[in-house]
Amino acid sequence: MKTSRPNVRRHPKNPLIRPRDVQPSRPDFQVVCVFNCGVIRHQNEVLLLMRVAEIAKSDAKNPIQVPLFDPNQGKIIIKNFDPKDPTVDTKSDSRYVLTPTRRYLSSISHFRIARSKDGIQFTIDPTPCMVADNVYEMYGIEDPRITLIDGTYYINYSAISPETGVTTCLASTKDFKTFQRHGVIFTPDNKDISIFPAKIGGKYYALNRPASAEYGFRDIWMSQSPDLLHWGRHESIMQCRPGFWDDGRIGSSSVPCLTDAGWLEVYHGSSKGNRYCLGASLHDKTDPTKVLGRSKEPLMEPEAEYELHGFFGNVIFNCGLLCEDGLLKIYYGAADEVIAYAEVSLAEVLDSLS
Amino acid sequence: MKTSRPNVRRHPKNPLIRPRDVQPSRPDFQVVCVFNCGVIRHQNEVLLLMRVAEIAKSDAKNPIQVPLFDPNQGKIIIKNFDPKDPTVDTKSDSRYVLTPTRRYLSSISHFRIARSKDGIQFTIDPTPCMVADNVYEMYGIEDPRITLIDGTYYINYSAISPETGVTTCLASTKDFKTFQRHGVIFTPDNKDISIFPAKIGGKYYALNRPASAEYGFRDIWMSQSPDLLHWGRHESIMQCRPGFWDDGRIGSSSVPCLTDAGWLEVYHGSSKGNRYCLGASLHDKTDPTKVLGRSKEPLMEPEAEYELHGFFGNVIFNCGLLCEDGLLKIYYGAADEVIAYAEVSLAEVLDSLS
Repeated sequence: MKTSRPNVRRHPKNPLIRPRDVQPSRPDFQVVCVFNCGVIRHQNEVLLLMRVAEIAKSDAKNPIQVPLFDPNQGKIIIKNFDPKDPTVDTKSDSRYVLTPTRRYLSSISHFRIARSKDGIQFTIDPTPCMVADNVYEMYGIEDPRITLIDGTYYINYSAISPETGVTTCLASTKDFKTFQRHGVIFTPDNKDISIFPAKIGGKYYALNRPASAEYGFRDIWMSQSPDLLHWGRHESIMQCRPGFWDDGRIGSSSVPCLTDAGWLEVYHGSSKGNRYCLGASLHDKTDPTKVLGRSKEPLMEPEAEYELHGFFGNVIFNCGLLCEDGLLKIYYGAADEVIAYAEVSLAEVLDSLS
Repeated sequence: MKTSRPNVRRHPKNPLIRPRDVQPSRPDFQVVCVFNCGVIRHQNEVLLLMRVAEIAKSDAKNPIQVPLFDPNQGKIIIKNFDPKDPTVDTKSDSRYVLTPTRRYLSSISHFRIARSKDGIQFTIDPTPCMVADNVYEMYGIEDPRITLIDGTYYINYSAISPETGVTTCLASTKDFKTFQRHGVIFTPDNKDISIFPAKIGGKYYALNRPASAEYGFRDIWMSQSPDLLHWGRHESIMQCRPGFWDDGRIGSSSVPCLTDAGWLEVYHGSSKGNRYCLGASLHDKTDPTKVLGRSKEPLMEPEAEYELHGFFGNVIFNCGLLCEDGLLKIYYGAADEVIAYAEVSLAEVLDSLS
């Protein structure tokens, strides 16, 4: 195989979707990010299931506020912090409000649908389709992936909670109007799950990314399931590579697509400095735990203005793409703030793996 | 329910089994701990599946050595550290050799069988029955539990590895002579799994203890399985209790036993200072995610000399017990070094829960 670098073309209209394009879910909220989105073709449209992050509108009286789901009240509430309290840290990381005893997320995320005939001009639903709803989702729901299996769309997503950590939950829909929740499918902390769109040898497969509390690694694992709800046969199949672009942490991103060469996965990796890039990996058709190839250089790295600067800069993150017309059509979160689009030749990506 | 404290009787011959009672697995190793053990009645004997921890015998030339399984060589090797290197820390915690880039375990654990007619005098096998054997077990195998289901003994245990973290693996045997491995059943970091000895409502259940890398908690969860290999429906069911003896971390210990009042579990909890005690919890017969009662005071806390002082003092840890003759017969690891025995009235334990 060659190791030439694929020519990734960013769309001139990028970013395609920005926070100001999205109506807040309630009048006292402000949309600050619309980013990591699941992608699928549905009824001849490109459908994006977008992660929308909102903050509570602050004012002079309440300058530090955090929205979170309260399981006891069964609704999203707003927690206020004393701006004079020197132990409350809002500066170190834009994603967090830090106190001596707890890490709060500064925003709460829900899911919102956007649709497009041409894949570029999107119409965005005025209201969320899924919002935080239980103790596992106190800090919101994040980073959905969509896998179509036998006419049902399965949506897995990260549920974030100070009580239960980072779990992965499953939901399903047939029409993107009503959604059924199926609970937690991976114990904490595990996110970045990508479910393969077909059974292989009688089993479902999913890439996933457990985080070791004791040993610190963030690698990619593969798990198997008879029914999408119960997972086992867990194996560590891809590790961070010292000295490469993905030496800090890696995790699966897109739902794998079947090519003549094998299952193609676009995954994300970061260096130790939290700079998130995308790369690709190729997995054996009949045993996808076997990794046949992997990007030596990143497929995409932050370089456009909207990738370098934003809510959390230097980030390109993907939760889904379309593999069609000989192209990978990548809808991705940029700088944790906007959605952008790029496309690249599938053949070039496959050629680049080694 | 009353909340009187049960009368736990420690055996006068405690500790029943000490490191010097166990033959090392090879001549250059030394047994330093024999402790947390699975317990079951097998062929009219009490069978203990013991965790045996060994260190490499050090000498003047090689004073700091660590045994570990090397997946490339397919065997346990010995890694030497330079005693003059000031960044190598062997003092902070007896369980570890710490370097700036990695935490090594100072010992490596395998499983060894001990058998007894009377439950007190044990005959110990001269050789291990299971040893570290793959990348998930580089730092050894630990803390086995035994669940008898339909004539097969299922053994779940912690597999420790710097590459793959703390996972839980499953093995099985019918005779405690040959053992079959079934791979990783819970992704990292998750240990302290206790599999219920019968299906409940058509599903297997297991208590487990995921460790959140992001949010730090160490609570008890329940999971379900159709086949013991694939697990899902994960729920957080028991949390650490601020101000109680179990405010630091908790995890399941014994295999639950069915009583008239429900499923009785003996679990371990520690305060924030790593003082490990045992307590009990009661779970609904038909929905064991429902916690009906819990020990306000510890059932057992370190107070005997062999519990207070040892390889890692102030620890009482359990991996199994016999529930028979109206008693809980508890075989437990004391100070991470020896095996001791205590018994307590089942009725008194049930009465003490609230």
